[in-house]
Amino acid sequence: MTEFELIARFFDRPIARGGAVVRGIGDDCALLDFGGATQLAVTTDMLIAGRHLSPDAAPRNIGHKALAVNLSDLAAAGAQPRCFFLSLGLPSADETWLESFSSGLLALADSYGCVLAGGDTTRIPSAAPLTISITAVGEVPRGQVLTRAGALVGDDVWVSGELGEAALALHAHAGRLHLDAAEASVAALRLERPTPAIDLGVALRNVATSCIDVSDGLIGDLGHVLTRSKVGAALRWASIPRSPALRRQPEEIQLRCALAGGDDYELAFTAPVARRAAVESAATAARTSVTRVGAITEGRDLVLQDEAGKPMDMPFKAYDHFGSYDPTA
Amino acid sequence: MTEFELIARFFDRPIARGGAVVRGIGDDCALLDFGGATQLAVTTDMLIAGRHLSPDAAPRNIGHKALAVNLSDLAAAGAQPRCFFLSLGLPSADETWLESFSSGLLALADSYGCVLAGGDTTRIPSAAPLTISITAVGEVPRGQVLTRAGALVGDDVWVSGELGEAALALHAHAGRLHLDAAEASVAALRLERPTPAIDLGVALRNVATSCIDVSDGLIGDLGHVLTRSKVGAALRWASIPRSPALRRQPEEIQLRCALAGGDDYELAFTAPVARRAAVESAATAARTSVTRVGAITEGRDLVLQDEAGKPMDMPFKAYDHFGSYDPTA
Repeated sequence: MTEFELIARFFDRPIARGGAVVRGIGDDCALLDFGGATQLAVTTDMLIAGRHLSPDAAPRNIGHKALAVNLSDLAAAGAQPRCFFLSLGLPSADETWLESFSSGLLALADSYGCVLAGGDTTRIPSAAPLTISITAVGEVPRGQVLTRAGALVGDDVWVSGELGEAALALHAHAGRLHLDAAEASVAALRLERPTPAIDLGVALRNVATSCIDVSDGLIGDLGHVLTRSKVGAALRWASIPRSPALRRQPEEIQLRCALAGGDDYELAFTAPVARRAAVESAATAARTSVTRVGAITEGRDLVLQDEAGKPMDMPFKAYDHFGSYDPTA
Repeated sequence: MTEFELIARFFDRPIARGGAVVRGIGDDCALLDFGGATQLAVTTDMLIAGRHLSPDAAPRNIGHKALAVNLSDLAAAGAQPRCFFLSLGLPSADETWLESFSSGLLALADSYGCVLAGGDTTRIPSAAPLTISITAVGEVPRGQVLTRAGALVGDDVWVSGELGEAALALHAHAGRLHLDAAEASVAALRLERPTPAIDLGVALRNVATSCIDVSDGLIGDLGHVLTRSKVGAALRWASIPRSPALRRQPEEIQLRCALAGGDDYELAFTAPVARRAAVESAATAARTSVTRVGAITEGRDLVLQDEAGKPMDMPFKAYDHFGSYDPTA
């Protein structure tokens, strides 16, 4: 059973209309409506040491990343972060570790005015891995939330930043490829201190037709958009934004890292061809680069094309927390 | 370092006025304000198998309890539950277990119209304990939230239901005392399927001057009210509501279970003497029993009195997740 099948089977049920929950399970964020001028986007993510977090990572970076992955979900909804809640399962109450962890966590929170509003700490057995669960709350003007549904045939497909750098760091760490010291340190920062694309998400309200954050690899995450929007897509491999360090790797590594690597925390979104200038303006306002990488098509297939427009093989699948692909394997 | 010291030292900081977070760390719930007619009470609790949950508990009861402890925090704020978010760290994706767990969780949620709006599931190492983190969101009319602050000298101290039954089940399970089969089964239900006092909390809006849920034992939890309200209290031991099964135990067991046992999920609250009839009406409306157990005093001490009014020893302290008292020890 994959994570998605598990959720669908046991936890996903129809939601009654007219209540506070406008949209529940199945998008980056739930959407809540309590009758004010804005709606609330809420997301929750659990991070486990050794699974989502490198055991070697500095506690300051662990604190940063734990919040960043949640803020990235708010970014995908076009929501402005307001506050978050932290549950911490700790094998021990190590003061040095906690001071460093909380400084990384709160520095990122402060940079978005996102307040730690509550939490729970509990001691777990010393053999159990550090467990961090965060629920983050953002605000979005009524009716302007970005979701996975809404991509239309003919829309451009865009991604922010560069893809695959975090996965490159994982491969290098596992000794499967070599990076020089400067490349390794840049890639490690992308893995350990991702920057959520909050400003871009906010700027894309009323511009993007759909949006998702790329946390499990572009193919898998864009696949969710296609499923929810009931469309297909054709991506141009040559257009997928990759760092110089990744472009120096064999193509098979580039494909895996950029399309199925996970941990990018960039946004993938769609917008009408007529809104290209609006997308570029949004990116400029958010001081973020964006790249057109393909187009939404009829049908339901996700096709990767080479420079001649020929379909390419994709010998991998998206990361799934209960599936068999392990980014560190 | 206790849990409370840990939170205060590394995570609790002043909150700027005028933002969405009206009240943050330090009460049963945070209070959020997004400009609507109501405010939001939000709480988060992490439960770890073997620590907060009996490893022998039926998965259906684990699902019930994981949500119940969060709803109990909403009850203490006088909030009506609206939705919740679930993070689940699972050692394996066992379908039978998940089906039973989700049925217990969702049956309780449905009984309060509280919608599962989102979540995250992740596989954890097989040696790690099942980890459940829930964030619950409730709604309360502006200005009517109940908090730990607000108890006034002369107020009555009240508790709902009976205290100590869950702790009695733990002691019996550990073989430290004997219960007959009927008593044992009632006590086990109190431990494994607590009923959050939602209706009572809602009915106490505009009646109670302070409120807390009794999750870590009355002495410790009422102690939080006294600290936040800057008052003391005198409790009459003879008035503390206890089940017949608990009353048959030696007094030392009764004291430990009823005052420091944990897992009661009743409400302790204060109200002016002049509002006794209003408290009784609230309890009747909520179909819940309430008992007057003492009074708020000047000073900061919490005193337990015998029938002659003489102070009694309290040879225990409140449960603390990072302290040394272990309810199963």
